[in-house]
Amino acid sequence: MTDKGFVLWFTGLSGSGKSTLADAVCEFLTERGHQVETLDGDVVRTNLSAGLGFGKEDRDTNVLRIGFVANLLARNGVTVITAAISPYRAIREQTRALIEGDGSTFVEIHAAATVEQCERRDVKGLYAKARAGELKGFTGIDDPYEPPLEAEVVCQTGTESMEDSLHRIVSYLESQKLLKVASVTR
Amino acid sequence: MTDKGFVLWFTGLSGSGKSTLADAVCEFLTERGHQVETLDGDVVRTNLSAGLGFGKEDRDTNVLRIGFVANLLARNGVTVITAAISPYRAIREQTRALIEGDGSTFVEIHAAATVEQCERRDVKGLYAKARAGELKGFTGIDDPYEPPLEAEVVCQTGTESMEDSLHRIVSYLESQKLLKVASVTR
Repeated sequence: MTDKGFVLWFTGLSGSGKSTLADAVCEFLTERGHQVETLDGDVVRTNLSAGLGFGKEDRDTNVLRIGFVANLLARNGVTVITAAISPYRAIREQTRALIEGDGSTFVEIHAAATVEQCERRDVKGLYAKARAGELKGFTGIDDPYEPPLEAEVVCQTGTESMEDSLHRIVSYLESQKLLKVASVTR
Repeated sequence: MTDKGFVLWFTGLSGSGKSTLADAVCEFLTERGHQVETLDGDVVRTNLSAGLGFGKEDRDTNVLRIGFVANLLARNGVTVITAAISPYRAIREQTRALIEGDGSTFVEIHAAATVEQCERRDVKGLYAKARAGELKGFTGIDDPYEPPLEAEVVCQTGTESMEDSLHRIVSYLESQKLLKVASVTR
């Protein structure tokens, strides 16, 4: 029987570095022999949540759908990475309960850059648009973000380097014996 | 690297025996060592398609979502079974293209019991309701069902026994070398 997988659930503000870090972790794990599937927020919105908006209820539904699919993959032994803002604590906890209930491991990783730090970089210019009122219901500006209280890993993505954040995550996975040991023969 | 999986895509009318047959195939494959995930139509509607109805566009969206998730699982080596009516040929073909395009195998299985045969059994009493006009847009009564033209397997679920249908499916999988060989050591 295939071992259960685990879910690395990134959460954080827009521009907090979730996706960059998720990509780096994906590359690291793939090289270590993990079967990794990344559930990209945009791809999921297109394929599973077309028609949903950005109000609380629709955001919740979108995040729960990501959790449902992540669970299906993880319980079949896949290592899953998600990188949606997932702003509401209760919904993240509901997802954790689903995944842990099915026997997989849920690792919440907080990309903890602050609004000020994200806004200063504003790579996609979204914060400027939100401040100008062109984007309504923007997380961190006029929509809430509830940071995790007990995330398994907190990455200070506003101040530490990507390499330091990656190292923090890998160390945690090692400590939990979640990493595959690279084997010579297979 | 894990091998790609395959998708057994059942299609057929309500009451045609899709789910019963899908369950039997799931049991057979699990015993043979396959990692199997069944995407049940109702569970998917609840978790991925809440709010969608039974008009053509919503039915299509629902089927495409099942296909999207089936593909994610299959490309990670999982054996996937789906058992939604999936009445429209073009949407089934779109799903086949997605899954084959990602390197997995798509096996369309037609549970080919006719409307008359399904209606005679009417296990859930749905045909009677549809005839009475209590259910609108019921596939096969007042909503179309487009049978596959070139399904990999056609099971005459209206006349042959479940065991015969199962045997037909297993023979096909054997002929395509899709079955795992039960191994003594692992």
